[in-house]
Amino acid sequence: MNYPVIDQDWFTEACLESGSAFSLELHSKLHEEQSPYQKIEVYKTKKFGNLLVIDGFVMLSTRDNFIYHEMMAHPALFSHQNPRHVAIIGGGDCGTLREVAKHSCVEKITQIEIDERVTRLSEQYFPELCTANADARVTFRFQDAIEWMQHAPASSIDVIIVDSTDPIGFAECLFKKPFYQTCVRALREEGLLIQQSESPLTNWQSITLPMRSEMNSAGFAHTETLFFPQPVYPTGWWSATIAAKKDLHLVRDNDVKNLNFKTDYYNYNIHLSAFAIPSFLQHTV
Amino acid sequence: MNYPVIDQDWFTEACLESGSAFSLELHSKLHEEQSPYQKIEVYKTKKFGNLLVIDGFVMLSTRDNFIYHEMMAHPALFSHQNPRHVAIIGGGDCGTLREVAKHSCVEKITQIEIDERVTRLSEQYFPELCTANADARVTFRFQDAIEWMQHAPASSIDVIIVDSTDPIGFAECLFKKPFYQTCVRALREEGLLIQQSESPLTNWQSITLPMRSEMNSAGFAHTETLFFPQPVYPTGWWSATIAAKKDLHLVRDNDVKNLNFKTDYYNYNIHLSAFAIPSFLQHTV
Repeated sequence: MNYPVIDQDWFTEACLESGSAFSLELHSKLHEEQSPYQKIEVYKTKKFGNLLVIDGFVMLSTRDNFIYHEMMAHPALFSHQNPRHVAIIGGGDCGTLREVAKHSCVEKITQIEIDERVTRLSEQYFPELCTANADARVTFRFQDAIEWMQHAPASSIDVIIVDSTDPIGFAECLFKKPFYQTCVRALREEGLLIQQSESPLTNWQSITLPMRSEMNSAGFAHTETLFFPQPVYPTGWWSATIAAKKDLHLVRDNDVKNLNFKTDYYNYNIHLSAFAIPSFLQHTV
Repeated sequence: MNYPVIDQDWFTEACLESGSAFSLELHSKLHEEQSPYQKIEVYKTKKFGNLLVIDGFVMLSTRDNFIYHEMMAHPALFSHQNPRHVAIIGGGDCGTLREVAKHSCVEKITQIEIDERVTRLSEQYFPELCTANADARVTFRFQDAIEWMQHAPASSIDVIIVDSTDPIGFAECLFKKPFYQTCVRALREEGLLIQQSESPLTNWQSITLPMRSEMNSAGFAHTETLFFPQPVYPTGWWSATIAAKKDLHLVRDNDVKNLNFKTDYYNYNIHLSAFAIPSFLQHTV
């Protein structure tokens, strides 16, 4: 067999922990810089549109980011009766922000991203994700989210979306009890938090379950994990975990059945389906 | 950055059509041969157990094949009131066969695999998939499935499972109307066929929809596609399509709610969830 060679014409993210790698064929490199926080690269791929890479990890591609961004926004927002103030932690590419802004009941969106360069580069290379950046409801804070959350007024936020990098390096604190405690404090009584929680196949024991345990011990009453495909992430299968101070239900079900905005992945059946737990994980929760 | 090099210590399947590639880190090559039909390789990987490769395409790994095999067997079998005779087309690794044999109502399983070497190598390198091979209900036919189906007695089969390679080369005919017509003839009135139908992200227009259209024009009354993760296949997101001669419903729902055998992925909620259609595909079906 003549197997294609995965060389410098491809971008590859190898995950040695899972012994797997994912590569995208490149057209060209569009940008590379070392920001004060991380190395940011943008590529044009052959078939997946543009590709954002931070410290060697794939953040998103033009082609498939809709799944992740919709699932980070809508399941949590429709599980809250009246989400008025939404805080997005990280989310510098603004794709999650765009989805949140689709909810007309949301009056205020605060995005706390440590690295302004991610947002500026996203405006340049992923303009379709940044269509809500100029929305009057949106405030950008380019600062450390841990610190911001410590000083957020108590009972001031309805939904917190933690759209961060993996729990290594400076994002690690975002997966720990002290941070979750400040979130519990900043959330109103019916408040919810949702956070990306890695691959169900390879990170369930090492990341998802410990994270749920930290959330519970910080004072959240319920945690549930939802599952979705995400081709550019390791194993192509991803999860997000919702933590609720009080109840966790699809309370705005009629709004989901009669969606008044366009989605590419999310809908009523997808919402319900995302919470189905594969058998090999059932005994763990 | 020092990115890991994807060299001969990894097995890579590159899909130029989607401009993506998936690699598994290798421990060693266990076997390689050219059978009369195809090149078969078996590797021991670092983290995914053993890996079966045919003509350069990943067939399965020890670690994640449970998802595919369970989804190829149980949704269709539980959608039939009384599946007595099941025919498996392809399926040489015997993982689907093992799942089918878990249904005590099944009286007869006929597996028609063109390449006996796949089965013999699976018995050697994936013995856990072959635990039903000696089951008295099982008959192996190592021959061309197209021909076998042409001569199958009319109304003699309840469920046909097409567990084949991609629709290129000699498997292409398995995705076409003439083959489906022989299946319609061989199936009993309530009969169902299920077949793997590739990636929802990259093959929906090119493979899944044309295949459904061939099924319909061959005489099947209903087709529905189900979705599931499959990390080792391109994009990590896969589908299977069920075609029904008459009705397509989960008719044995109580049996699914009270499963009397062990599964690692499939369960009642997963069954219902698998049929949820992502928004970007909804207008096409």
